[in-house]
Amino acid sequence: MINLVIGGAGFVGVNLSDMLMANGETVVCIDNFSRFGSGLIDRFLSHDYFSYYELDCTDEQGLNTVFKNFSDHRDEVLVWHLAANSDIPAGIDNLKIDVKDTFLSTAVILNCMKQVGFKKIFFASSSAVYGDHGGVALRENSGPLNPISNYGAMKLASEAMLSACTESFLELALVFRFPNVVGVPATHGVIYDFINRLRENGSVLEVLGDGSQRKVYLHVSDLIDALIHLRKLGRVGFEVFNIGPSDDGVTVQAIAEEVCSVFGGNPVIKYGSDRKGWVGDVPRFRYDVRKIGSVGWQSSRNSREAIELAASEICQSMV
Amino acid sequence: MINLVIGGAGFVGVNLSDMLMANGETVVCIDNFSRFGSGLIDRFLSHDYFSYYELDCTDEQGLNTVFKNFSDHRDEVLVWHLAANSDIPAGIDNLKIDVKDTFLSTAVILNCMKQVGFKKIFFASSSAVYGDHGGVALRENSGPLNPISNYGAMKLASEAMLSACTESFLELALVFRFPNVVGVPATHGVIYDFINRLRENGSVLEVLGDGSQRKVYLHVSDLIDALIHLRKLGRVGFEVFNIGPSDDGVTVQAIAEEVCSVFGGNPVIKYGSDRKGWVGDVPRFRYDVRKIGSVGWQSSRNSREAIELAASEICQSMV
Repeated sequence: MINLVIGGAGFVGVNLSDMLMANGETVVCIDNFSRFGSGLIDRFLSHDYFSYYELDCTDEQGLNTVFKNFSDHRDEVLVWHLAANSDIPAGIDNLKIDVKDTFLSTAVILNCMKQVGFKKIFFASSSAVYGDHGGVALRENSGPLNPISNYGAMKLASEAMLSACTESFLELALVFRFPNVVGVPATHGVIYDFINRLRENGSVLEVLGDGSQRKVYLHVSDLIDALIHLRKLGRVGFEVFNIGPSDDGVTVQAIAEEVCSVFGGNPVIKYGSDRKGWVGDVPRFRYDVRKIGSVGWQSSRNSREAIELAASEICQSMV
Repeated sequence: MINLVIGGAGFVGVNLSDMLMANGETVVCIDNFSRFGSGLIDRFLSHDYFSYYELDCTDEQGLNTVFKNFSDHRDEVLVWHLAANSDIPAGIDNLKIDVKDTFLSTAVILNCMKQVGFKKIFFASSSAVYGDHGGVALRENSGPLNPISNYGAMKLASEAMLSACTESFLELALVFRFPNVVGVPATHGVIYDFINRLRENGSVLEVLGDGSQRKVYLHVSDLIDALIHLRKLGRVGFEVFNIGPSDDGVTVQAIAEEVCSVFGGNPVIKYGSDRKGWVGDVPRFRYDVRKIGSVGWQSSRNSREAIELAASEICQSMV
C-alpha cells in the first residue's frame, strides 16, 4: 500500500505516518510546511519507507506531477487528505483562508486523483460541520448541518464534493469527523494555547469565554487506532464516521485547572463572561459514536483521560 | 430597496427582475452573459429602474468595485445570488466548472459583501443538495446530505459558507432550495432539450434513461411568487426553505408524451434502459414543503400543471 499523506507534516499526519511505517507501509508526505516548517518530519527523513514533497496541494500542476510518479501503481495508492487551515478564528476573520486551505485543497486533490486514476481517499473532516446543536448527541446522518465557522463550512464543502465524486470516479471516500484531537507534537488547540500563555506569564491564565464550554476530546493515539481499524474494514463508496469517546466531554474550566496543575506554580485562572470563547466556537458539543462502535471500535480513553495525558505530554515537550 | 441580482440575465433572474420592477423596485443586474449573452435582458434596457454590469462575479476586484457604488445605501441593499453553472453533466465531467461557477461565485460574493457591509442575501440553492434518497419526502433539516452531482455539492458548499457567515457578519441568509423550475425564457432543462431534439428530428424523440425518473417541477411564476412572499416575512439569520408543489412529481415519460403532444407530428418516443438519465441524475425526488406551507405559501400549480403550461410556453417561444 502506498500512502500519500497530504498534510503529512502536521500533528495528525506525523502520528499517522509513524503508525503506517511501523506496519511496514510506504508513506509519501506532501505538505507545504507552511506552519511548522519540516520540523515535525525530521525524524522520518532517514526512514526507508518515507519520502516527502514540499508542495502546497492547491498547486494543481505540482500535485499532478507528484501524483504521476505513482501512476504505475495507482491501484495501490491510498490518498489521506489531512491538509487544512488549523486556525479557525483566523478563517472567520479572513474568509479566503478556509476557502483555499480547507476546501480548494480538496477540490484540487480530487481533480488530480481523477486525472491520474487514484480511486481511494480518506478525508479528515470535523465535528465543526454540524454547527451548534446545544449538546445533542450528533449522528453521522443528523441534519441540518449548519456550520458556524468557515472552517466547518469548508470541511462540509469538501465532504459534499467527495460525495459527488463517489458517484462518478471514486471507489472509496471515507470521511472521518474528528472532535478536538489532543496529544503531541502539539501545534495548536486549547492545551497548547494555555501552556503558551502560562510560559509568558506563569501567575495568571486568562481564558476566553466563561469556562462552561463543554466538548469532546480524543487522544491522537486513539484517533490513529480508529483510522487503522476503519481501513481494515474494506468499505467502498462514500461513508462518514464520527470518531470520539462516548462521554459528554469536559469543560474548558476543567482543562484550565488540569493544565495549571500540570504546569505548576498555582496560577490564578481568570474567565471571560461569554458563553462562547470566540465567534465560530461551538460552546457545547457531543457525538453519537454508535456507528463506529457497531464496527468494533471504541476509544481507549475518555475525554477527561485524553486531556490529562495530553496536558502532561505537551507540558513535558514544551517546558 | 436596491436589488443586486447576480446571475440576473438568466432564466430565474429575468423573471425575478420583471416582478421586482413591477413592484417599483430598483434592479441592478450583474451577469457575465456567458451562456445567453445579454439577450434575455434586452427588454429591460429602457426601464428606469434597471441597470446592469457585465461582470463575472468570481472577479473579486470587479465585484468589489460594483458593490462600492452602492455602499452609501448599504442598508437598503439585498443581494440575490442566482449565478451558477446550469449544465450539471458538464460539471461532473469537469470538476472545475461547478467549483468556480457554483461555489467560488458564492465565496467571492460573500467576501465582497463583508468588505462593503452588505448584510442580506437570498441564495438560490437546489434540491440537488439532498442526493438520492429514493423518493422519501425531504425536509429542510433532513440528513444526511449526500449530493451525487458536483453541482449539488457546490450548492451545499455555498449553503455551508452562508451558514458560517451568518454567525459573523450576515444579518440574513435566506436559502431557497428549488426543484426543477420550468417556464420561459427557457435556457435549459428537460422540456427545452426535448423540443430541441424534436426540432432536429420531428419523427423520433430519444430519451435518456428508461423514462421512469419521477421528479417535482415548479413553474417559474410560482417560484417568483414564493420568493416575494418569503421576503415579506422579514426573517433574520440563516434559514432554508424548500420551494415546490406538494405532489410526488411527474415521470420523464409523462413529460416526453406531453412535449410530443404539444409539438405535434406524432413522434415515436424511444427510451434508454437505465434508471438514471445520466451520472449525477437523481432518478426519484420528492420534497416536503410543510415549512413554506406553515408561513402561508403554496404553489398554485402542481408538477403536472407546471409541465403542461411550460411545454406550451416553450414550444410557442421556440418553434
